[in-house]
Amino acid sequence: MSLKNLYYIYTISDSIGETNGRIARAAANQFDEREYIIKNYPFVLDVKLAEYVVDEAAEHSSIVIFTTVIAEIRKAIIARCKQYGIKYIDVMEPTLAVFESHLNEKSRNEPGATHRLDANYFRRIDAIEFAVKYDDGKDPRGLKKADVVIIGVSRTSKTPLSMYMANNHYKAANVPIVPGVPLPAELYQVDRKKIVGLVTSPQKLSEIRQERLRAMGLGAQANYASLERIIEELEYADGIMKKLGCPVIDVSNKAIEETASVIIEMIKKKNEEEV
Amino acid sequence: MSLKNLYYIYTISDSIGETNGRIARAAANQFDEREYIIKNYPFVLDVKLAEYVVDEAAEHSSIVIFTTVIAEIRKAIIARCKQYGIKYIDVMEPTLAVFESHLNEKSRNEPGATHRLDANYFRRIDAIEFAVKYDDGKDPRGLKKADVVIIGVSRTSKTPLSMYMANNHYKAANVPIVPGVPLPAELYQVDRKKIVGLVTSPQKLSEIRQERLRAMGLGAQANYASLERIIEELEYADGIMKKLGCPVIDVSNKAIEETASVIIEMIKKKNEEEV
Repeated sequence: MSLKNLYYIYTISDSIGETNGRIARAAANQFDEREYIIKNYPFVLDVKLAEYVVDEAAEHSSIVIFTTVIAEIRKAIIARCKQYGIKYIDVMEPTLAVFESHLNEKSRNEPGATHRLDANYFRRIDAIEFAVKYDDGKDPRGLKKADVVIIGVSRTSKTPLSMYMANNHYKAANVPIVPGVPLPAELYQVDRKKIVGLVTSPQKLSEIRQERLRAMGLGAQANYASLERIIEELEYADGIMKKLGCPVIDVSNKAIEETASVIIEMIKKKNEEEV
Repeated sequence: MSLKNLYYIYTISDSIGETNGRIARAAANQFDEREYIIKNYPFVLDVKLAEYVVDEAAEHSSIVIFTTVIAEIRKAIIARCKQYGIKYIDVMEPTLAVFESHLNEKSRNEPGATHRLDANYFRRIDAIEFAVKYDDGKDPRGLKKADVVIIGVSRTSKTPLSMYMANNHYKAANVPIVPGVPLPAELYQVDRKKIVGLVTSPQKLSEIRQERLRAMGLGAQANYASLERIIEELEYADGIMKKLGCPVIDVSNKAIEETASVIIEMIKKKNEEEV
C-alpha cells in the first residue's frame, strides 16, 4: 500500500454515527486503488469537541462527514473546515431543509433519538432472545412460534442471518440439515411459506469451511471441506427442500443483509395475503 | 391521529437502503405532532422501477430520499420528482462530488458493495456464533476467549448487547447475576478490564420486567417485577462488580447502540495500552 494513496475520512455525529460510516464506505468504494481510514467520532454534543476533531483531520489528507441536528455544532464544523480548506459533507442540513419546507415547520434542533421503552424496542429484544434460544435446531418447539424457519447445511450462514432478522424484529429459528440426522417432526407441521432453504455453490461452501477449519487449527484436508462431501450434502438438502416445497435462496453471492431483505419481503407478502 | 398530519417518506436505494431509513427517521424525529410512513425500496437497479416508485409517491404527500451511485437512476428520479413537484433528497451525489474533488478521480458508478469472502466477513460471523454459544453463562469456557464479558441481573439487555457487539466483530460472552446462584470460577480468572457490569434504575427494571411478564401471560404482581426484590438483586450485583473491580455502565437511559459504543471505546483503549 502506497502512502500516497492513503486518505482519512473523519466522521462526526450527534448520536451513534452509523449513517456516516455507511455513506463514507459507499462513497469510498466507488474509487479504485485508494486506501482510506475512517475515524468515527460518535456522540459529539459539544462545539469544542467538534472543533478538536476537525483540528485532527487537518493533520491528514481528510474528508469530514458529519450528521448533526444541532445548529451550533454544524456551524462550528463548517467554519473550522473552511479555515483549513478541508472538504466536508453535511448530511443532515439539506435533508432537514427539505423536511422543513415540505412540512412548513421548523425542526426541533434536538440531538439523538429518545430511547423510550416502546413496543418496537421490546419486539427487537424479544426477537434477539428468540433467535438465540432457537438457534441451530436447539428446541423444535420454537418452529411454530417463529416468523421464519431457516434451514440449510452447515455454514450457509443460518445463525448470522437469524440474528440479522431478529435485529429487524422478526423471530427466526434455524435448523441444520445434516445427512443421517433426522429433522424434527415439527418442521413438517409448520406452514411451508414460513420455511426458507439456503443453498450455496459447492466451491463457495468449500472455501468457507476450509477457512473455518483453519480458524479451528485443523487441516484443510479434512472431509468436512471436501467438494465430494459438500456436493452430497447439498443434494440431500435439495431433496428435503423439494419435499417441503419451501422457497430456496442461493446465498453464494449475497451478503447477509441482502438475503435478509429477500426474506423480509417474503414475510410481508405472506402476511398481506393472509389479511 | 389526524390524517391531515400524515405524510409519506419514499426511500429508493441501489442496495439494502439502511442509510435512507436512518436519515429519514433522524429528520422526521425533528418534527413534532406529525405521523409519517416510510416506504422502502431497496435494490432498485433499474430506471423503470425507480420511476414507478416516484409515481407511487406522487399519489401521497411525500418526500423522496434516495441513495444511488448509478447516474442514470439518479437523473430519472430527479426528473420524475420535478415533474410532480415532489421534494427529494439526493444523499450520494453531494458526497460523491466531494470525494471526486478530494481524490481528483471520477467515481466508478457501480452499484452495491462487492461481497468478498474477506477477513471482516468471517470475523463478524464468528463473533455472532460466539455470542450465541456463550450467551447467558451457558459455557464458562467462553469467558477466556471473549473480547468482553458482560455481567448483570436479569433484563439488563445482556443478550441483545452481546449480539450488537458481535455484529461489530467483537466476541462477547455474558453471565447473569442471580442471588443464590454461584458465578463461574472462570469469571475471577479473566482480566478485569475485559468485564463490564450493567446496572439500571430499579424503576426501569421493574417496568421492563412487568412488560416481560405481560408478554408471557403472567400477572404483573409476580415477585420477579417487585421493586423490593429488584433493589435486593441490584445491591447483590453491585457487591460483585465492586469485588471484581470492573467498569460499570448504567443502561437506564441508553439504547443498546450507545452502551455498545461505550464498550467498544473501552476495548480499543485497553488494546492500545497493551500494544
